Amino acid sequence: MARVHNFNAGPAALPLPVLEKAQAEMLEFAGSGMSVMELSHRSKDFASIIETAEANVRKLMNVSDDYAVLFLQGGASLQFAMIPLNLRRDGKTADYVDTGSWASKAIKEAKGTGGTNVAWSGKEENYVRIPRETELKLTPGAEYVHICSNETIGGIRWAAFPKTEAPLIADASSEIMSRAIDVSRFGLIYAGAQKNLGPSGLALVIMRKDLLDRCPESVNIFLRYKTHAEEASLYNTPNTWAVYVLKLVTDWVQSLGGVAGMQRINEKKAATLYSVIDSSGFWKCPVAKEDRSIMNVVWRLPSEELEEAFVGEAKKAGLVGLKGHRSVGGIRASIYNAVGQDAVDALVSFMKDFEAKNG
Amino acid sequence: MARVHNFNAGPAALPLPVLEKAQAEMLEFAGSGMSVMELSHRSKDFASIIETAEANVRKLMNVSDDYAVLFLQGGASLQFAMIPLNLRRDGKTADYVDTGSWASKAIKEAKGTGGTNVAWSGKEENYVRIPRETELKLTPGAEYVHICSNETIGGIRWAAFPKTEAPLIADASSEIMSRAIDVSRFGLIYAGAQKNLGPSGLALVIMRKDLLDRCPESVNIFLRYKTHAEEASLYNTPNTWAVYVLKLVTDWVQSLGGVAGMQRINEKKAATLYSVIDSSGFWKCPVAKEDRSIMNVVWRLPSEELEEAFVGEAKKAGLVGLKGHRSVGGIRASIYNAVGQDAVDALVSFMKDFEAKNG
Repeated sequence: MARVHNFNAGPAALPLPVLEKAQAEMLEFAGSGMSVMELSHRSKDFASIIETAEANVRKLMNVSDDYAVLFLQGGASLQFAMIPLNLRRDGKTADYVDTGSWASKAIKEAKGTGGTNVAWSGKEENYVRIPRETELKLTPGAEYVHICSNETIGGIRWAAFPKTEAPLIADASSEIMSRAIDVSRFGLIYAGAQKNLGPSGLALVIMRKDLLDRCPESVNIFLRYKTHAEEASLYNTPNTWAVYVLKLVTDWVQSLGGVAGMQRINEKKAATLYSVIDSSGFWKCPVAKEDRSIMNVVWRLPSEELEEAFVGEAKKAGLVGLKGHRSVGGIRASIYNAVGQDAVDALVSFMKDFEAKNG
Repeated sequence: MARVHNFNAGPAALPLPVLEKAQAEMLEFAGSGMSVMELSHRSKDFASIIETAEANVRKLMNVSDDYAVLFLQGGASLQFAMIPLNLRRDGKTADYVDTGSWASKAIKEAKGTGGTNVAWSGKEENYVRIPRETELKLTPGAEYVHICSNETIGGIRWAAFPKTEAPLIADASSEIMSRAIDVSRFGLIYAGAQKNLGPSGLALVIMRKDLLDRCPESVNIFLRYKTHAEEASLYNTPNTWAVYVLKLVTDWVQSLGGVAGMQRINEKKAATLYSVIDSSGFWKCPVAKEDRSIMNVVWRLPSEELEEAFVGEAKKAGLVGLKGHRSVGGIRASIYNAVGQDAVDALVSFMKDFEAKNG
């Protein structure tokens, strides 16, 4: 067995103890006589899994009873469609902040179905920073303000969140549970699971219950948040396997001291990596220091040839997934919760050797 | 390890060799150094998985190049919404045949967004039969005709499919790959994976490519079939784990002689069970013989007390999931592809003992 250091942007690394547990329980889950995948979603065994998953999310993120916690299919991409369908009433406008590739996708989907104001865009600056709050051109009476709290491709993140009159909505796919955030400041937080929470095919949605009633009757039953909230995410068969793995992952986060514990680990990992990048002119991170993500670290080398050599040699050394997104090039290391300090240490050690040879 | 005989209606039994393979590869897939869940959906390793899954579907169901094969999220329930959104243009009508609980759900979703004609309903007869073709009140110029090819709850199925002028669409969730069907007779066939194909959280959609262009521009990007067809089901991150398990399940179906081989096995299983039910007045199957499902077998006992005792004692004997759906009561054995003749033999043996004691 030769596990590599996995820096994939998503789907991404999972904690080894989670995989080992899933492996051990594959043929028979907890005395049920069957695999988790074979359990009825209406069974007591699965009820225990999904209820524990929800309880873990509530505990780890300090989510109050004023919020619903939903496990939906379709990833963040279906949320791009559902959010305006549910929360932007006819003739009204929603504000979006364009900080990069993922915010742009949310905007594109929103524009197709109604009033969409782009309150700020970093596109002309190549998405290297987060706007200051005073730069946002918000709409009076907007239905909500949408941000992407961490941009996976650009490697930037909102260190602090803006104060808004309208409910604040965040796509937190690539940083959920990586740092403490105050859920009570948001109307809705959502995240595709495949970066920090589990496998792909699942989206976690945390939303203020009073927003459940905003959805127009014209929207398809399946696409209404209320439909899923009323049935505790069992309106239809959920992605039971992904809910199970999310439950195991959140158990694991708790074992490391919860989100506060993860944040300490993550800040140390990020500091390790950025300090090497900043230590030499050989590496260059394009992102403003105050806006740097602690999950997705992006940087450039002196030439594209060197970048290609870096990615290729790193792979041979067991460091996988370091190629920057095809839309921007360069190098990207995604150091999600499940990527340990050991992986980052191996990476910076490789970087030092590479610079010595090529610098 | 004590695996039970699993007669769950869905999520349902998976082939043991599939689970064993998934278990063996859990920590490292095919020399990749990571779990399938940790693979990038853009990686060569995952490309090989999803391309093989599609090739398996095409080969097993004899699907021509005139059809797209898609792996989508949201199960059959999202299809209930997507089908009318994509294929029923403004002001036009779609025909639906109401054969039971699942057909009804598709109808309910369709009615919310446009013209929906119920061409026949078995509701007043308690859904115990499939209509004759002459009973269908089809709309001239209808956009499509929707049927549920096998009703999981009622235990009925279309032995032969109706000839329709409009494209025929079938929800085949609970019987896909259980018997040979002529795909070229359909405009679109879809199936939630969690009964005959793999775990929950995945829908297989097989659709005629000329129908991809019918979708109005007003529909959300994510909800258009064309979006997913153009990107070979990689517009967004698919449920990678479920696609992998579907690939393993379809490999396994091929090893048993393909769909024709499965059909022989399934017909024998169903004959074994129905012959015991029909052998005595103690058991009573409400379904017309010519419409009986070979996947979901439903029957009654002389009293609800006996039915409760039957389910409870069966469970103690390692026969799980036999309780009829809460909406209809009685007994139901779902004998999908992965439920072997050994499980059916164990069930009928138990039935004979139960009748001897209580008959």
